[in-house]
Amino acid sequence: MSEMNGAESLVRSLLQSGVDTCFTNPGTSEMHFVAALDQVPGMRSVLALFEGVATGAADGYYRMASKPAATLLHLGPGLANGISNLHNAKKAGSGVVNIVGQHAASHLELDAPLTADIEGLARPVSHWVETSLSAADVGRDAARAVQAARSAPGQVATLILPSDTAWTPGGQVAPALPVPTREPVEAEMLEQAVAALSGPDSLLLLGGEALSAENLERAGRIAAATGCALLSEWANARVERGAGRVPVARVPYPIDMALEALSRFRRIVLLGARPPIGFFAYPGKPAVLTHPEAEIIALADWAADLDGALAGLERAVGAAGVVPVLAPPVAPGTVSGPCTPESVAAVLGQHIPEGAIVVDESVTTGRAFHGATLGAAPHTWINNCGGSIGYSLAAAIGAAIACPDRRVMTLTGDGSAMYMPQALWTMAREGLDITVVIWANRSYRILLGELSGVGVMNPGPRALDMLSLERPAIDWVAQAQSLGVPAVRVERAEEFAVALERGFAEAGPKLIEVLL
Amino acid sequence: MSEMNGAESLVRSLLQSGVDTCFTNPGTSEMHFVAALDQVPGMRSVLALFEGVATGAADGYYRMASKPAATLLHLGPGLANGISNLHNAKKAGSGVVNIVGQHAASHLELDAPLTADIEGLARPVSHWVETSLSAADVGRDAARAVQAARSAPGQVATLILPSDTAWTPGGQVAPALPVPTREPVEAEMLEQAVAALSGPDSLLLLGGEALSAENLERAGRIAAATGCALLSEWANARVERGAGRVPVARVPYPIDMALEALSRFRRIVLLGARPPIGFFAYPGKPAVLTHPEAEIIALADWAADLDGALAGLERAVGAAGVVPVLAPPVAPGTVSGPCTPESVAAVLGQHIPEGAIVVDESVTTGRAFHGATLGAAPHTWINNCGGSIGYSLAAAIGAAIACPDRRVMTLTGDGSAMYMPQALWTMAREGLDITVVIWANRSYRILLGELSGVGVMNPGPRALDMLSLERPAIDWVAQAQSLGVPAVRVERAEEFAVALERGFAEAGPKLIEVLL
Repeated sequence: MSEMNGAESLVRSLLQSGVDTCFTNPGTSEMHFVAALDQVPGMRSVLALFEGVATGAADGYYRMASKPAATLLHLGPGLANGISNLHNAKKAGSGVVNIVGQHAASHLELDAPLTADIEGLARPVSHWVETSLSAADVGRDAARAVQAARSAPGQVATLILPSDTAWTPGGQVAPALPVPTREPVEAEMLEQAVAALSGPDSLLLLGGEALSAENLERAGRIAAATGCALLSEWANARVERGAGRVPVARVPYPIDMALEALSRFRRIVLLGARPPIGFFAYPGKPAVLTHPEAEIIALADWAADLDGALAGLERAVGAAGVVPVLAPPVAPGTVSGPCTPESVAAVLGQHIPEGAIVVDESVTTGRAFHGATLGAAPHTWINNCGGSIGYSLAAAIGAAIACPDRRVMTLTGDGSAMYMPQALWTMAREGLDITVVIWANRSYRILLGELSGVGVMNPGPRALDMLSLERPAIDWVAQAQSLGVPAVRVERAEEFAVALERGFAEAGPKLIEVLL
Repeated sequence: MSEMNGAESLVRSLLQSGVDTCFTNPGTSEMHFVAALDQVPGMRSVLALFEGVATGAADGYYRMASKPAATLLHLGPGLANGISNLHNAKKAGSGVVNIVGQHAASHLELDAPLTADIEGLARPVSHWVETSLSAADVGRDAARAVQAARSAPGQVATLILPSDTAWTPGGQVAPALPVPTREPVEAEMLEQAVAALSGPDSLLLLGGEALSAENLERAGRIAAATGCALLSEWANARVERGAGRVPVARVPYPIDMALEALSRFRRIVLLGARPPIGFFAYPGKPAVLTHPEAEIIALADWAADLDGALAGLERAVGAAGVVPVLAPPVAPGTVSGPCTPESVAAVLGQHIPEGAIVVDESVTTGRAFHGATLGAAPHTWINNCGGSIGYSLAAAIGAAIACPDRRVMTLTGDGSAMYMPQALWTMAREGLDITVVIWANRSYRILLGELSGVGVMNPGPRALDMLSLERPAIDWVAQAQSLGVPAVRVERAEEFAVALERGFAEAGPKLIEVLL
């Protein structure tokens, strides 16, 4: 044992705690950790060309594997490049273990070029931040980081490892630490919820683990028994849906539609969801989306035992034998005509393959997708929960590695996809079964709506020019091919359907540019 | 005046303070600032597809314009994506004014998805961070941010603007605030420096503004008069060089070479430079690169009046009439054979055009460039000072916008370039005269050396796989064309020379992939 250095104890301790996948973009200060991969079997290392791809992949991995992956990042700037997707992971409740290299302690005081306040950078996006002090601490600190990441909901844990803790002998392998259990809901809250859920002016608002297939069945029975409505939050870390499952609409994104959708509810029970609020503030409009007189019963937050809460609620309202409303399958057929948000939505409803994982970042193009795909073959749907665009290509990598037997589909606007196109290279390198669909409207289309939303009524040409991606138009087929991903461009709905089916039939990634 | 909102007062106040260029990637919370661009003439807005391109461009702009540009970034995640290049800007002493949108104050407490600790994210890479409290404060706060950014050396100033401060009337245009002057060096320090500079075991180590053409002339005369050696730091924000200028070698990057280069000096005068230290710590090697017995005379740090310091030193050593050693021009000729680090270095020496701005991020391929280009046509050379790779494509944008009459050349490794390839799109959109040269060695080549440097002697196949970019090979010609930049691939030195000359002859950007 005394011959083991800190780096090797890190890899062995992560494995002990069940972390066997690492998304990496290493540098000099992490070379010993890279070298330890050859000493220790069992850790899958996935190289990313940009750190945001690594952190976004860890987010997608957690959502499908229900356990954290590690990232390996190079000093402060490497962490910095991963922060926006860590923000998304944090807001999704995804557990992530970041391993960030640091200069050796003796080097820090010299203020070398790469010296930065790593803890300061990590804190805004981490629940847990520590710096190991010696090789002997690394294993135990890694186990503690994994323990934090495995909390409910998952947390972002950032462990900073000075390079001398990596190369110094004395590493100790640490056993896994116990994972905190989820708190049950209080009986009194359950009674309040039972009293509130009655009739069409009552709402059960679902989020987090309440959107698993089993919990949705329970929610569907509760709704059938009580007459309450079901909704989910706008953005959900993961929801099981499709034909034969309990369909749940989302609280809409546009502020006026959201206010309208929630206006009739006077009693709202929150189950893994937060009180509905606007994504942004708009002048002269409310930010709280519920009716001013609505009673909000916070039955269980996203950290609570949501399985138990739904089972308890089901029993208490006497819904055990009730038959829930299930989504009927989409009628088969062929959609033809130019690609529009509506026609591509219909194509998706017909062609999402059974068991697919859909990573959605469609922004404006996707407004019609929810309804059109409720009756698609059963599938998993993943949203961006943090609002930092550019997460979906990266998250798809993690989902595909967590579920190698399932087809992953990434649906993304062109503006969003250009934040981290480097993800395409990792998809090619790892041969991942991912179908990337780019909605090429060649603009930051959502911002055109947001301009009027915030009260800019007659934007001039210079303002509009800041929202246009037409000059030059991005050639997504060439972009994908440059990074090793086969690609095709379609302009008509029937071409889109054919391209999807061809992609599903082949192993490895495929990109489809859909001109809108 | 009372009708003006905070957003318009921002744009007008920035212009009053001399900031007339803004690199933007805006979102909803910044829409009023975008709209204000149409109300107020004179602000050039340059759209980036990723925030790191915006912040890197601001770094490059400062180095050539000697005044700050603004960036416009979307909330915490938008700032986060710009942090790594702000780190580089901070380490280069580049002044940058970041304008970061924030939720309206009333919205912050609701913890919407994009809510983040923006001040916390900004602090590690900013000298100055403030959040405006009302529309009436925005103009004055902008003037204060510019004042901070214009300090010597330039500082990173981050002004956070809640969206209600943008849309609320009551904006006030603020006048420019005075820029702090640089401190003169102390007479006593000057005397110590004069006593130290004598003979070949004395060194004048230059950094920052000491590397301007005029200051290098002075340094050359001082060296000729005293017999001292001249060196610059390894990474320099900007240095004027080429035939007819005073040639100054850099302290080498590899630790053993750096120790060797500095070993003979017993008296070292620092003029805008910091004491030489290793980039990283390596096991069993010193981090301080100078001889243990060397006397270090810190004559002037990079914030001091370096022009005055060099003029004073020149007078004190009686160097006024002395003829300095100047770099002779490179012999013309044709280099032929495969592209290698040596052959492309020779091509650069012959083909860098007069007045070019070379933004260098060549990492391993560039180790021979310094000597081979000392006698090229007079040009400006820019290094990455913060060590966060991926800065050069972005910095080139800023340099090209600051100096529209000069040709910009970006020399970058393929690994580095893949951090922020989105910069190519902005080059195309703005029609910038930038020649991008990609050294395609298809690996993180530098890390192969670093592995042994930190003591990993027999890396296994899994470790080496983390340093390889061959699977798949990136097609840089397709990558460039997908983003609107014409491109060509070369494998031989003579093809490289032809491609360079063709690119210089045409307006707009051009990419050359050099297969090594």
